Amino acid sequence: MDIQNYMQALGQQAKEASRALSRAGTNAKNHALLLIASEIRKSADNLKLQNKLDMDAGQSKGLDAALLDRLELTDSRIEGMAEGLEQIAALPDPVGEISNMNYRPSGIQLGQMRVPLGVIGIIYESRPNVTADAAGLCLKSGNATILRGGSEAINSNKAVAACIHRGLEQAGLPATAVQVVETTDRAAVGELITMSEYIDVIVPRGGKSLTERISNDARVPVIKHLDGICHVYIDAAADLDMAEDIAFNAKCHRYGVCNAMETLLVDSAVAVDILPRLAKRYATESVELRGCEQTRTILTDIHAASDEDWDTEYLAPILAIRIVDGIDEAMDHIHKHSSGHTETIVTEDYASSRRFLAEVDSSSVMVNASTRFADGFEYGLGAEIGISTDKIHARGPVGLEGLTSQKWIVLGSGQIRQ
Amino acid sequence: MDIQNYMQALGQQAKEASRALSRAGTNAKNHALLLIASEIRKSADNLKLQNKLDMDAGQSKGLDAALLDRLELTDSRIEGMAEGLEQIAALPDPVGEISNMNYRPSGIQLGQMRVPLGVIGIIYESRPNVTADAAGLCLKSGNATILRGGSEAINSNKAVAACIHRGLEQAGLPATAVQVVETTDRAAVGELITMSEYIDVIVPRGGKSLTERISNDARVPVIKHLDGICHVYIDAAADLDMAEDIAFNAKCHRYGVCNAMETLLVDSAVAVDILPRLAKRYATESVELRGCEQTRTILTDIHAASDEDWDTEYLAPILAIRIVDGIDEAMDHIHKHSSGHTETIVTEDYASSRRFLAEVDSSSVMVNASTRFADGFEYGLGAEIGISTDKIHARGPVGLEGLTSQKWIVLGSGQIRQ
Repeated sequence: MDIQNYMQALGQQAKEASRALSRAGTNAKNHALLLIASEIRKSADNLKLQNKLDMDAGQSKGLDAALLDRLELTDSRIEGMAEGLEQIAALPDPVGEISNMNYRPSGIQLGQMRVPLGVIGIIYESRPNVTADAAGLCLKSGNATILRGGSEAINSNKAVAACIHRGLEQAGLPATAVQVVETTDRAAVGELITMSEYIDVIVPRGGKSLTERISNDARVPVIKHLDGICHVYIDAAADLDMAEDIAFNAKCHRYGVCNAMETLLVDSAVAVDILPRLAKRYATESVELRGCEQTRTILTDIHAASDEDWDTEYLAPILAIRIVDGIDEAMDHIHKHSSGHTETIVTEDYASSRRFLAEVDSSSVMVNASTRFADGFEYGLGAEIGISTDKIHARGPVGLEGLTSQKWIVLGSGQIRQ
Repeated sequence: MDIQNYMQALGQQAKEASRALSRAGTNAKNHALLLIASEIRKSADNLKLQNKLDMDAGQSKGLDAALLDRLELTDSRIEGMAEGLEQIAALPDPVGEISNMNYRPSGIQLGQMRVPLGVIGIIYESRPNVTADAAGLCLKSGNATILRGGSEAINSNKAVAACIHRGLEQAGLPATAVQVVETTDRAAVGELITMSEYIDVIVPRGGKSLTERISNDARVPVIKHLDGICHVYIDAAADLDMAEDIAFNAKCHRYGVCNAMETLLVDSAVAVDILPRLAKRYATESVELRGCEQTRTILTDIHAASDEDWDTEYLAPILAIRIVDGIDEAMDHIHKHSSGHTETIVTEDYASSRRFLAEVDSSSVMVNASTRFADGFEYGLGAEIGISTDKIHARGPVGLEGLTSQKWIVLGSGQIRQ
C-alpha cells in the first residue's frame, strides 16, 4: 500500500464528508448516534471476537498488564460505548448557535455563528472505546473524523468502525464522516499530521511523549494536553478542616488522573498545625510524602523532595510538599513548576482569593474546591475529547464547543463602504 | 552575536515581563499607551532622522517604490501612530472579564475569566508604524511582545522601540514588555518561531509567502492570514440595483486589500440583466473583466478567464466573472476556490440567505452587504492585529479579544469529589 496515497484519499473523503456533516440537522446527527449505539450493542459478540485477536496478539508480543487491560473490550465496556453515544445524542447541538447580533453604525447587523472546525484527526493509544467516544463527539459537533488508534487495537477498531459506518448510512449520512486508518504503518501518522489541505485540527490522546512528538512534527493545529502537575496551596487564612479535606481528596480520590494534586504548598503560618493532621490522613492511604527542608522539620520521618520532584507528574500515591512564605511565594512556585492544568487555593481571605484567581495562569483556577473537579462531566460539558493545556482556542476540558469555532455573520440591506 | 542566546534572552525577559503585564491594571496600561503616544510625538524629528537612514539604505539597495513608500515615516504617519495608541487606550480592557458564572450540581460555581495569551511574537515587513500598532494592541491585552520587523526598517523600528520603552518605564511597567529584535540576521526568525517555552503565539503580518514559510517552520501556534479570494454571489432573487452597488463597491472601493471581491458569481437567471449594467459601471474605473464562456456570450468583448483566475487574489482592478446555475453551484465554486476570508450573497430570498449563512465556511459570511465591511474597525473591534483565515481560536478580524483566551475559574466552599 502506498501510505501517502492512501492517507490523501482518506483526507479527501473526509473533507467532502465534512461539508455534508456541517449541513446535517440536529435530528439526523442524533439519529445516527443512536443507530450507532444500537449497532454496537447488536455487534457485541463480533466486537469481542475481533478484540480477542488483538488481545492474543498482544499477549504473544508480551504487552504489559496495564496495556492489555486498556485494550480489552468487555461486555461492560461495550455497553459503556453505547451509553456514551446516547449521552452525546442528548447534549444540545452547538452548531448554528448565533450570538451577539448587534447593529453597527454603518447599518449592518453583525454577529457570530458557531460552526464545525471541519476535519479532525485523532491519534490515540490502544483503547478501542476511544474510537466510539471520539467519533461521537466529532459527529455531534458536525466534524468529519479520521481516527488513528494504537496498532495493537487494529482489529477491534475496525470492528467498531464497521458499527459506526452502518449507523451513519442508516441515518443517511456519509460513512466517510468517520474513517479509521486501517494500516498500522507509522508513516500514516506522519501523513495525517501534515495534510493541512484536508485536516483542520489534530487531537492527540495519549502519553506526554506521543503528544510531544506529534506537536513537534505537525503542520496542522494541535489541541493538546501534555501533563497535569496540579497544586493545592493552603493559605495562612485557610479553614484548616476544609484544607485537610481538599488536600486529601485532590491527592487520594484517584491517582492516575491528570487533575490529581502532585504538589502541596503550605503557608508557613499554618504548616505546624495542618501538616501533622494531613500526614495522618495520607498514612491511611499509604501515600508517600516527600518534603522540602522546612517540611521535614515538622514531618521528621519523611523523605526529602529533590528539585526533580517539583516537576514530576507522579500519577501515583506520592506527594511533594513545600512550605512557602505567603501567596507570592506560592504563585512563584506554581508559575515555575505548574503544567498549566489546575491549581487551587484554600483560603478565607477575600484579597488572596481574588489575586490567586487573576494571577495564576492555568486552564482551571479554583478557590476552596478539589482540583479533581477539572473535568468535562463536572463542568457540565457532557463529555470531553481531552483537557487542553494550550492557551489558544480551547483551554481546559474540551467538549463539543471546543470542536467548533465561530464565524462572523453580517446581515445587511444593501450597505456599501463609504 | 550568538543569535540563539540573544533570542533566548529576549524570550526569557518577555516571559518575565508578561507576568507583570498580566497583573497590570487597566489604568497602568492606558497610562503607558498615552505616554508612548506622547513620546512618539516628541521624538518626531529623531524618528524621521533614523527613518532617513533606512530610506537612504533602501534607495541604494534599489528597493522598489511601493516598498519605499511603506518604509517612509512622514509627519502624518508619526501622528497616526500616536493617535492609534490613544484609540487603543480608549478601548475597553478585555482582561479579567468574567462570564457564565453558574452553579453546578456539586455546589461549585463555575465560570470563565478572560486572560492574556502571554508572549506574542509578531513578524512583519518594513512598515515601522506596525511596530507601534502591534505593541499597543499587545500591551492593552496584557501580553508581552517580541517584534521582528523587516530588516530595511531596522533603524526606524529601534527608534520607535525607544519611545515605547520610555513610555513603559514612566508608567511603571517593565520596558521588556515590548522588545524589538535588534539584529537583521534571518536566523532570529527561526529562533523566534520555535521557542515554544517562551512564545505563546506568532502573528505573521505580510505577504502569503512569508506567512506560509513561517507556518511551515513554526513550533508555536500561528494566527495567520494567507490571502483574500472573496466572492460576491448575485442570486436569482437579488434586488439588481442593490447587487450593482454591492458588486461595484466590493471591487472598486479599494483594490489592494484582502476584503476586496476577486470573483463575481452571477445566477444565470439574472445574468443578462445585471452583467451589462455592471460592465458599464466597471468601465468607469477601467476594471479589466475576465469571464467564463457563458459570461462572454453576454459581455462579448471581455477576455476569457482561465482556470488560474478562479484561484487568484488580484489585489488590482481585475475581476473574474462566472455564471452559475443556482445557489448550490455558487457555493460549490466558493467551497473550491475561496480562501475562507469573506463571501457575500445578494438576495431577497429568505431560504437562500439562510442557506448561504449556514453553509459557506468563511471567516465572514454576509447577506446584502459589501465584502469591504470585513474589517476590525467596521466590526467595532477598534483595531485589528490582522484578519485570520484559520479556523481555530480567532476567525476573521483579530482585535484585543483575539489576543486573549479564557481560563476556567471555580469558586467553592470546600467541595470535594465524591
